[in-house]
Amino acid sequence: MNHSDLTPTLASTSEHLSAAPTLVDKLLAGNRRALARVITLIENQGAEAHDALAALYHSTGRAHIIGVTGSPGAGKSTLVNALAKAYRQRGYTVGIIAVDPTSPFTGGALLGDRVRMRDLSGDPGVFIRSMATRGSLGGLAQATADVILALDAAGFQRVLVETVGVGQAEVDIASTAHSTIVVEAPGMGDEVQAIKAGILEIADILAVNKADREGADRTVTALHMVLGSGATMRQVQHHGRLLDAGLPAPAPDDGWTPPIIKTVALRDQGVGELLEAIEQHRSHLQVSGELQRREEDRAHAALIRILQAAVLQRLHAAVPARQLHQLVADVAGREIDPYGAADRLLPAILSAE
Amino acid sequence: MNHSDLTPTLASTSEHLSAAPTLVDKLLAGNRRALARVITLIENQGAEAHDALAALYHSTGRAHIIGVTGSPGAGKSTLVNALAKAYRQRGYTVGIIAVDPTSPFTGGALLGDRVRMRDLSGDPGVFIRSMATRGSLGGLAQATADVILALDAAGFQRVLVETVGVGQAEVDIASTAHSTIVVEAPGMGDEVQAIKAGILEIADILAVNKADREGADRTVTALHMVLGSGATMRQVQHHGRLLDAGLPAPAPDDGWTPPIIKTVALRDQGVGELLEAIEQHRSHLQVSGELQRREEDRAHAALIRILQAAVLQRLHAAVPARQLHQLVADVAGREIDPYGAADRLLPAILSAE
Repeated sequence: MNHSDLTPTLASTSEHLSAAPTLVDKLLAGNRRALARVITLIENQGAEAHDALAALYHSTGRAHIIGVTGSPGAGKSTLVNALAKAYRQRGYTVGIIAVDPTSPFTGGALLGDRVRMRDLSGDPGVFIRSMATRGSLGGLAQATADVILALDAAGFQRVLVETVGVGQAEVDIASTAHSTIVVEAPGMGDEVQAIKAGILEIADILAVNKADREGADRTVTALHMVLGSGATMRQVQHHGRLLDAGLPAPAPDDGWTPPIIKTVALRDQGVGELLEAIEQHRSHLQVSGELQRREEDRAHAALIRILQAAVLQRLHAAVPARQLHQLVADVAGREIDPYGAADRLLPAILSAE
Repeated sequence: MNHSDLTPTLASTSEHLSAAPTLVDKLLAGNRRALARVITLIENQGAEAHDALAALYHSTGRAHIIGVTGSPGAGKSTLVNALAKAYRQRGYTVGIIAVDPTSPFTGGALLGDRVRMRDLSGDPGVFIRSMATRGSLGGLAQATADVILALDAAGFQRVLVETVGVGQAEVDIASTAHSTIVVEAPGMGDEVQAIKAGILEIADILAVNKADREGADRTVTALHMVLGSGATMRQVQHHGRLLDAGLPAPAPDDGWTPPIIKTVALRDQGVGELLEAIEQHRSHLQVSGELQRREEDRAHAALIRILQAAVLQRLHAAVPARQLHQLVADVAGREIDPYGAADRLLPAILSAE
């Protein structure tokens, strides 16, 4: 690792800037307080975070990133907790990121944390962080990806990223993972069955949690049926992403059939089997060359997100506030339609660039 | 209404352009096929859609927009169906938009539609449309707002917008409504209770559906407790939005306490009461001046969405594909970090503007 470019320069007068290399060095050496500080920098999304990420990026790429998503009430937090314990028993270090895109006030994530803290606190091989949205969803996805990098560089071997909810945000955040686990539970009703068709597109592994409940086998059967068409869906989506990126070839079928695993996370049942499925998927990704493709997908997604954020930031800085205020009133008063109003604002915004 | 600026000009050689005014005229006269065609134009997001929206915008602002959101499995589709029937019995025309941001393959929306079609099909006073995401969530929110305008201009007096899921997307889409109903059901578990704290910020009315189930009273009690802090949350959120917009004054408390209404939508129980609560909320908005403020919020949100889409479209057109492809490979290979790579692309993108 070459960190020579991180030596504080005489030109730097900022205390934080001159402290940054030390901070990253400490993080790389396994200092947890340094890790926590870098994560705080990331959440504040300033230039210091970018400096720190540039410095630690060379040391990333070793962790296996596991996304855990699914319907509310399926028991994701408990399952993540049980998985972390199982990984610890096998000697792996584990980072956990609980993402709650629903609320800027962090209801769900905190709740899950309380359960986790009981079982995992005091173990230096585990690091837990909750993240809630502060403003844009794109910002949350980017901050999550950056915190994953920090945990990876800090040496955590498995990083579990849990997202609450079932929307596109979860799909985006899950797409930063190497292996995505979709968690379901028996008896969630027809509507949830329908949602599955959407969320299954991203599943590498399916967990039917609370499998001691009535209807678990019916849920497994339903998932098998939906999975029949699932492979095709994933192909379609992947092709779309390639086209968006201006990349040429359509992706070949990666030859992985998502296993469906019954778990009762509260009693640690099926959790070992789930862990094995994740490790098998990891091996499959490495052997098939799919890992390389996913790394490029993740890199592409990160680049586009960062560029979008940069361009939108310029937009917000360039909007003429008084003219916007007047046009908002005119649109509300039905004097001009929103597209016409936007056309009047665009020249000022674009000439500012 | 002045539509004189919509007369086909000699300069126009496009068959579609010269047909556009006729289409909007037909829509305004209540022609349902014209309405369906305009909605298709909106979904395709082309210049024709903007022309049509500019032409019909003067005729909007009469419909009351009702957002219906909440946890999966709460029975939103059934409740929307029952509400539509109740409005029809009172002589109102009703538009229904079922939005499914989860999947580009429309699982959930179609399922809900099947139920609705049985009860509401053949009634010319009802218009139903499903919408799924094709690409960006921002695009879906904008298309939904535009379809609401089309239904409003076509004379539908109440427009019900149902969103599947619990993420930020639903919050965004619900924010295009005058009255937002959050639907819950008993016994959805602790995690759902936690999510409520987030979603309650946007609730004008709470419906506890499936209220004949065990635990309904407990759910109502829990909601009352969360609501205690809810008013404060909404204030905070509204202030944030004003600051983003560059608008000056903080919003005063609007003096509305969200009622909690028990319903059993499958048996039409409590649906009349829910309808009355919506109408009371509408009156409250009109009398308090809050309606004007919400119209301005909606106009502001629409303007920013349109500007963002325009700027992002320019970004995607300006990204140099080959350089992007190379940088994606470099980021995946850990040769450069994503922020550093974005910095290399930005000059080319910005100079293209």
